Amino acid sequence: MTHIYNFSAGPAVLPKEVLAQAAAEMLDWHGSGMSVMEMSHRGPEFISIYKAAERDLRELLAVPDNYKILFMQGGGLSQNALVPLNLVGHKPQPATIDFIHTGSWSGKSIKEAAKYANVNVAASSTTQVPPQSEWKLTPGAAYLHMCTNETIDGIEFDFDAGVPAPLDGEFANTVLVADMSSHILSRRVDVSKYGLIFAGAQKNIGPAGVTIVIVREDLLGKALPACPSAFDFKLVADNESMYNTPPTYGIYIAGLVFQWLKKQGGVAEMEKRAIAKAELLYAALDADDFYQTRVAKQNRSRMNVPFYLKDESQNEAFLAGAKARGLLQLKGHKSVGGMRASIYNAMPIEGVQALVDYLNEFAGRTGK
Amino acid sequence: MTHIYNFSAGPAVLPKEVLAQAAAEMLDWHGSGMSVMEMSHRGPEFISIYKAAERDLRELLAVPDNYKILFMQGGGLSQNALVPLNLVGHKPQPATIDFIHTGSWSGKSIKEAAKYANVNVAASSTTQVPPQSEWKLTPGAAYLHMCTNETIDGIEFDFDAGVPAPLDGEFANTVLVADMSSHILSRRVDVSKYGLIFAGAQKNIGPAGVTIVIVREDLLGKALPACPSAFDFKLVADNESMYNTPPTYGIYIAGLVFQWLKKQGGVAEMEKRAIAKAELLYAALDADDFYQTRVAKQNRSRMNVPFYLKDESQNEAFLAGAKARGLLQLKGHKSVGGMRASIYNAMPIEGVQALVDYLNEFAGRTGK
Repeated sequence: MTHIYNFSAGPAVLPKEVLAQAAAEMLDWHGSGMSVMEMSHRGPEFISIYKAAERDLRELLAVPDNYKILFMQGGGLSQNALVPLNLVGHKPQPATIDFIHTGSWSGKSIKEAAKYANVNVAASSTTQVPPQSEWKLTPGAAYLHMCTNETIDGIEFDFDAGVPAPLDGEFANTVLVADMSSHILSRRVDVSKYGLIFAGAQKNIGPAGVTIVIVREDLLGKALPACPSAFDFKLVADNESMYNTPPTYGIYIAGLVFQWLKKQGGVAEMEKRAIAKAELLYAALDADDFYQTRVAKQNRSRMNVPFYLKDESQNEAFLAGAKARGLLQLKGHKSVGGMRASIYNAMPIEGVQALVDYLNEFAGRTGK
Repeated sequence: MTHIYNFSAGPAVLPKEVLAQAAAEMLDWHGSGMSVMEMSHRGPEFISIYKAAERDLRELLAVPDNYKILFMQGGGLSQNALVPLNLVGHKPQPATIDFIHTGSWSGKSIKEAAKYANVNVAASSTTQVPPQSEWKLTPGAAYLHMCTNETIDGIEFDFDAGVPAPLDGEFANTVLVADMSSHILSRRVDVSKYGLIFAGAQKNIGPAGVTIVIVREDLLGKALPACPSAFDFKLVADNESMYNTPPTYGIYIAGLVFQWLKKQGGVAEMEKRAIAKAELLYAALDADDFYQTRVAKQNRSRMNVPFYLKDESQNEAFLAGAKARGLLQLKGHKSVGGMRASIYNAMPIEGVQALVDYLNEFAGRTGK
C-alpha cells in the first residue's frame, strides 16, 4: 500500500505511537478491566489520567501557577461566544472588545462577539499581521483578541520578532486573548503575556471534541448572566473541568499526545521541526512562479500552508495526482480556494518531503 | 482475573464487541490509511460514518421525518441552558417554561432555565412522578420540560401507563421537552409526542462528549439573541451537525453502538432485557428489609437503581466486598448517599445476576 500522508487542517494526523497505544488499551486500561470510555469521570482511574494530562500540558507550555487549564467542549468556534460571555461581565454594558483581524477565524470571532459587546477592529489585513504600531486600541476595552495562527489564511503572528510586544501607557494592562487553535504546542509561547489562550484540540492536541482554555485566575468570575453554567470558566475551573462530565476519552488521547511530545523533546523540539518542515515546503513553492502564495513572508504560517497553482485549470489534476501518491486533503478551504497543506506536529518531515517531491514533479522541475 | 461488571452511572459500560471493533480499526479505518480521529469531518470517509449513525439512530427510535437529529457537544447539563436559549425567542420576554420536578436533574434544569425565562414548577415529587391530573400548567408557556428518567433518584416516567398522556384543551399544543439522557434507547418511545428530546451520550449511546438532540423542525429558528452560534439548533441542523467540527470519534463510537443495538434486535429487545434485568434486581432488594428503596414501584427506573442498606454503618463493608467480586461503581451519588446500580443496555444480565448473588450473600440469605 502507498504510504498515506494526511494534510488535513483538522481533524488531522495523530502520532502513530499514540494510536497504537490507544488501540492496545481500548478494552482494558492498565488492568482496570475497563476501557477509558467506560470509566466514571469521578473514579480514581480517570482522575489519574486527567491529572497527568493537565500536568503534562502545564509543563509543555510552562503555564504559570496563576493560570487554570480547562478541558472543555464545544470547539474553538464556541469560544468565540464563550470568551466574551465569560470576560466582560464586570464592565459597564455593553463592554468594548478590541480585535486584530487577520483572516477567517478572527473574522468569525468578531462577528460572534458583537452579540455580547461592542467590537472594535483595531487593525485588519489578510496578507500579513498588521504592524503593531498601527493598532487602534480602545481605552478601557475588556480585552484584545487575536488569532495568532489563521488556519484558513495561513497567517501566523511573528512571536520571534516579539509580536505582540508588551503594550504600554494607558494600554499597559490590556488583557490579551489568543486563539491558538492551529499552532498551539508547535512553538514556544510566553503564556504570561496572555490573559487567556484557547485552542480546539483537533490540530496539535488530539481528537475533535476537546477544547483547551488557559486562563489567568484573576479573569475568572466575570461572566455575563447569560453565560450557560456548563461553560462558565469559573465553575469549570473550580471543579477541575468536572462541573459536568468532561469528554473523557478525548482527554485521554490528548494526554497520550502530551506524553509523546515530551518524549520527542517537548515544544522546543517541535518548533525546530516545524521550522525545518515549513522551510522545506515554502522553498519548493518559491522555486519559480508555478505555485503562488499570498502571505507576507514574515507571517507565513509554519502549520497551515495555503498555495495556488498559477494555472488554476490544473487544480483537479494536481489533486488527483496527489491522491494517487497518498498525499491527502490538499484542497484549500472553500472560502479561499486553491490548495492548503497543514503540517502539524504529527506530520513527519518525510511527509513534507513526499509533498515537495510531488510539487516539483507536477511543476515539471527536474534535477532537484 | 475476576470478571469486571461496571455499574457506573456514566460514563458507563459499553458493548465489548464495539470496543473490540474500535481497537481493530484504530490505526486504519476500512483501508483508508487513517484513524477515524484523523479524518477531516468534511471528507467522504467521515461523512459516511456520520450518515450511517444518523440513519441508524433514526431507525432505532423511529424518528419521524419532520424531526432533525443533531450531534452536539456540551453534555446534558449544557442543554439545560441551550434548550431555553433555543426555544423561547419567539415569545414575549421573559417567556415562561413549565417543569415537572422529579429529582436532581430536573432540579438543575429548573435552576438553569431561570436565567433565560420565568420558570413554573407545575408539579414536584422525588419519590414518584406526580400524577398528571395534578400538573399545574401555565397557559402560553413556551414548553413543558420533564426528565423522563432521573439518573440520581432512580425515577422513571411510566410510559407503559401512558404518562405523559396527550394534553388537551388550552394545553393541546404544549411542546414537550424531555431529558432522556439516562434511558434513551432502553425502551420504546413515541418521538412524535415530543417537541424536543435530548440525551448525553455517556449512558446508552457512547462516550462522553456527544450530546444528541432530536427536535421537531417547526421549533427551529426561535433562539434568543444571546444563544452562541455553535449551539444554535437551527445552524447546527442546517449544517448537518457540522456548523463547527463535531466530536467525530465519539460519533463513530455511537454509530458502532447503534449497529450493535440493531444486531441485538433494536430497542424492543433492549426493553425486554431491561425489564428482565430490573425485575431480577428489584426482587432481590425487595426480598426482605435488609435493603431499602425509596421510589414508588410504578416509577422505579429500569436503568438506575438506587438502594440503601437498612444498617448504613455497613456501607463501606458492602462496597469493599462488591469491589473484591469485581462489582464496581456501586456507591450512590453523594447528594443522596446509599448505593446505586446503573444497568444500562450494555450491562449483560450476567452482571445483574452477579450483583444479585452478592446482595443475597451480604444479606446473609441462603438457599436462594
